Amino acid sequence: MTPSKRTGEHTIAALIAPDIRALLRSSPQEVAAETEELHPADLADVAKTLTKRDLIKLLQVLPRERAADLVEYLSDQRRTEALEEMNAVDAAQIVTEMTPDDRADVLEQLEEGVADEILSGIPAEARAETERLLAYEPDSAGGIMTTELTSARLDASVEDALAEVRAAARRGRREGLYLVYVLDDQSRLVGVMSLREILAAPPGSLLRDVAGTDVVSVPATADREEVARITREYDLVAVPVVDEGGRVLGVVTVDDVIDVIVEEQTEDIQKQAAVQPLEEPYFQVGFFSIARKRAGWLILLFMGSTLTINVLAGYGRQLESIMALTFFLPLIVSAGGNSGSQSASLITRALAVGDVTLRDALRVFLRELGQGLILGASLGLVGFMRVILAPPTAEMGAFSATTIATVVGLTVLAVVMTGTVVGAMLPLLLRRAGVDPAIASSPFIASFVDIAGIALYLSIASALLGM
Amino acid sequence: MTPSKRTGEHTIAALIAPDIRALLRSSPQEVAAETEELHPADLADVAKTLTKRDLIKLLQVLPRERAADLVEYLSDQRRTEALEEMNAVDAAQIVTEMTPDDRADVLEQLEEGVADEILSGIPAEARAETERLLAYEPDSAGGIMTTELTSARLDASVEDALAEVRAAARRGRREGLYLVYVLDDQSRLVGVMSLREILAAPPGSLLRDVAGTDVVSVPATADREEVARITREYDLVAVPVVDEGGRVLGVVTVDDVIDVIVEEQTEDIQKQAAVQPLEEPYFQVGFFSIARKRAGWLILLFMGSTLTINVLAGYGRQLESIMALTFFLPLIVSAGGNSGSQSASLITRALAVGDVTLRDALRVFLRELGQGLILGASLGLVGFMRVILAPPTAEMGAFSATTIATVVGLTVLAVVMTGTVVGAMLPLLLRRAGVDPAIASSPFIASFVDIAGIALYLSIASALLGM
Repeated sequence: MTPSKRTGEHTIAALIAPDIRALLRSSPQEVAAETEELHPADLADVAKTLTKRDLIKLLQVLPRERAADLVEYLSDQRRTEALEEMNAVDAAQIVTEMTPDDRADVLEQLEEGVADEILSGIPAEARAETERLLAYEPDSAGGIMTTELTSARLDASVEDALAEVRAAARRGRREGLYLVYVLDDQSRLVGVMSLREILAAPPGSLLRDVAGTDVVSVPATADREEVARITREYDLVAVPVVDEGGRVLGVVTVDDVIDVIVEEQTEDIQKQAAVQPLEEPYFQVGFFSIARKRAGWLILLFMGSTLTINVLAGYGRQLESIMALTFFLPLIVSAGGNSGSQSASLITRALAVGDVTLRDALRVFLRELGQGLILGASLGLVGFMRVILAPPTAEMGAFSATTIATVVGLTVLAVVMTGTVVGAMLPLLLRRAGVDPAIASSPFIASFVDIAGIALYLSIASALLGM
Repeated sequence: MTPSKRTGEHTIAALIAPDIRALLRSSPQEVAAETEELHPADLADVAKTLTKRDLIKLLQVLPRERAADLVEYLSDQRRTEALEEMNAVDAAQIVTEMTPDDRADVLEQLEEGVADEILSGIPAEARAETERLLAYEPDSAGGIMTTELTSARLDASVEDALAEVRAAARRGRREGLYLVYVLDDQSRLVGVMSLREILAAPPGSLLRDVAGTDVVSVPATADREEVARITREYDLVAVPVVDEGGRVLGVVTVDDVIDVIVEEQTEDIQKQAAVQPLEEPYFQVGFFSIARKRAGWLILLFMGSTLTINVLAGYGRQLESIMALTFFLPLIVSAGGNSGSQSASLITRALAVGDVTLRDALRVFLRELGQGLILGASLGLVGFMRVILAPPTAEMGAFSATTIATVVGLTVLAVVMTGTVVGAMLPLLLRRAGVDPAIASSPFIASFVDIAGIALYLSIASALLGM
């Protein structure tokens, strides 16, 4: 036995992948023994380098339980194509060995015909369990839970509970084994004990007397983001899922919660950039599918931005007489867009992690107004100096550099303040209206501030230059 | 015992907070018994509603271990102010009961004088342990690990291992108890067994024969993001941390990994919006501190954007003769900025989660070039139609609406393609140069594309209009 560290890029997988590929061709029956010591995540890394045919072969020569482990770690795309092309008997036997939640997830991604065929090859009990899980919304607690859990009655002793865990472990259950859920006569969830607490409890004590009653649970219909929030808040390794009567249906384990957190985060980042969530890794989403998810917002924002043409055309004559004003247009609108994006991102994220709530609206408003004032004054000063130091003399009409610089400086101040406040308040307004605050994306804020910024610019110029 | 569900907004805390506040004034000695059943996370929610004085009182009347649990769940700001104002003897006793990693984290946040005073009141062994942890970089595996773990020798039996876990649990250890790490004669980490595996193993078997040898570990110097990546990839509940000799130093538990993931995500979102990471919740960062973290990039981008003035001024005469061209400026630059932000966000995120690597650079380039073509053509067509349908007739000089519309349409196509490709490739280039790709923020891309877009616009106009 040697310590194996794994900290760089998947070195282990890269080292042994060629051997395994060769072995699959020369003596496939030896592959199982050769890869026995590998973590399934590493085996999945090796599988990335295999052709589809070799991957199917690998799944067929591994022991069923080992193949099931591997399937759980494959990318959605790889496992879907492998299971769809494999013969349905093999596929059913492998899928049977998966944990109930992963089994349901996998089947959901397969073509319906293939999924039904595989499902019909699964033993009746596991099939019923899978069908029950498939009935939940994929984004709900029910949709991500597993039905594997260990429970005991209130009147059981800690020894009974430990025996229950031991029996489940010997049956090969892999999940939900760090906690024992305590049920009353009506099978309602009334307590929880960690294995640590069971081992530490005085011998012979009853769960009724030693189990913690402060059990945190979620209904099966809870949104998966809510499950993630609760896991994080209470530092849980598993969250029990209950029905309306308080009876336990399953548990969501922390590894799935981490996946939820990362996926939701990716969606938020994409929404913030005005992209409809891709829902799959970048290269696994079809080219035209990505284009569609980007075009919607882009075209809408573009059409909105055409309003800037009307605003500018409305001031056409005046601009013609002081041509220099048009030179500062891009500078002014980008300052507003950038500061607005900052505020929108800060507040949207603060709402998402719970650092800011709707009740903080006034505080946010005042704070961002102040930020806008400071940032706007700083940028305004830079803009003012830029005009003073290098004025576009030929195109300033009858006005002095100081006058033009004042118009530019004041406009930048006003536009940055507008961007900051609108960027901060829009996410709150959207949340209030029950809409996802992420719609207040950076491009949306920037486009909005473009229009407002140009109107402000021309109003300020009109007032100060008397045009 | 009644089932307690906790799925909405912290209802429990809101319900009992007034009672606890009243009790703290009338008979504080009863508070411990009254709140005994509360999860420390809920008690921390109650603590949010308390004044600083009441919070200190609460920490003093609770049993030390319970107070330590509460401190672990308080916000950084609240626990810092409470511990700094409490007398150092109480504070030291509470801090002693915390898990080693949280103890180090708390002390790190206190003023140095206070931290030293508290540290000197902690028993020698715990103090030495804390000082060892404080020596690691806060963002490294060593900086987030706890030293509480359960280990056993290779020649121990599964019964020995279970006895070890039981003893640790009875000593009150709270973390790292789901796994037993297996050490060789030189105390090197050579294996790992979960409690499930220990319970399922044949009675009397030796760890040498039954422990998994495929143990994933990280060096103490590993970045915390790397720890998070490994936890996620291998679905771990704890990652052991080793020194250069392979000896185990501690473990990072999954609850801390989740905090790392959420914090790193917040930082990424802030960087994407050209804000230096706040590192604390929105309302806990000082007003001027936020302003500084925003002003840096904002001013830099603003100064960069002043280049647009030079580009425009360079074409001053030509623009004067075809005034209408200036009306389309904001529309054109925002189209480029928006599509560029989309690409930059998609690729930066894909790099962060590992969906895209540097080796994919060519594939990304071709894909985004294609995206730019499709999106640019769509927006270009909309722009073309807008000019055709409502041309700013008075300001088009001698040119027909079709000619101006062609200039606008082609420019939008070129600018969107530029934005898309630059937005996608810049994160890859930055990663290649060893710089954080998040610097390619939406505002940065937008500002860059502003300049490029105006140059493209005026070049295309010059070529087509012969100006």
